[in-house]
Amino acid sequence: MKPINLAKKLATFTDHYKPRTVGQFNGHDLMVVKVKGPFTWHKHDDTDDFFLVLKGHLTILLREGQVELGPGEMFVVPKGLEHCPVADEEAHILLIEPQGTPNTGDRSTAAARVVI
Amino acid sequence: MKPINLAKKLATFTDHYKPRTVGQFNGHDLMVVKVKGPFTWHKHDDTDDFFLVLKGHLTILLREGQVELGPGEMFVVPKGLEHCPVADEEAHILLIEPQGTPNTGDRSTAAARVVI
Repeated sequence: MKPINLAKKLATFTDHYKPRTVGQFNGHDLMVVKVKGPFTWHKHDDTDDFFLVLKGHLTILLREGQVELGPGEMFVVPKGLEHCPVADEEAHILLIEPQGTPNTGDRSTAAARVVI
Repeated sequence: MKPINLAKKLATFTDHYKPRTVGQFNGHDLMVVKVKGPFTWHKHDDTDDFFLVLKGHLTILLREGQVELGPGEMFVVPKGLEHCPVADEEAHILLIEPQGTPNTGDRSTAAARVVI
């Protein structure tokens, strides 16, 4: 029964687009991730996709428009909607997805779920 | 398709222990709340209870021990576990609970869900 300090968890790794699971909630993984550069266009047919920016700035490209997020800003990509996260500089993000959701939307290209 | 700025949402109200719903995710309400003083002992038999401190400090009393949270710290109270949030000074929290979950664990005493 300990608090989960997000900055301390983020300080334990340096790679990008490799989420680390730091907790669980109602069948979802609570994950922190460092992002830089463009990710890949993808969608999740079975789940919404939760983003909260902890540090830096993140752009979520959509097929129609885009969403710009800074620290303390949150966005939920609705289930089934194609999106592509992009960050010009490194940004730190809290992600929430159901346990086992492939981060690319495709199990063959997804990052492994690593618990820290 | 707009970002949800948590600080701006929190600036729209001043009362305590009255969560405002600012978004939705996989059947859950994403809520911000200002807390000060003790809440009530309660539990949720059907759901975990997600807390992320955005500003200030929060203590979550448990029947065995307690968890102290500062800014950027998160804690998930497991389903069915009795807990009582307490804050000596005002703190700002991101909460996630399934839509319709009574914040006190009891519909007769729960705060209304208000969407902002």
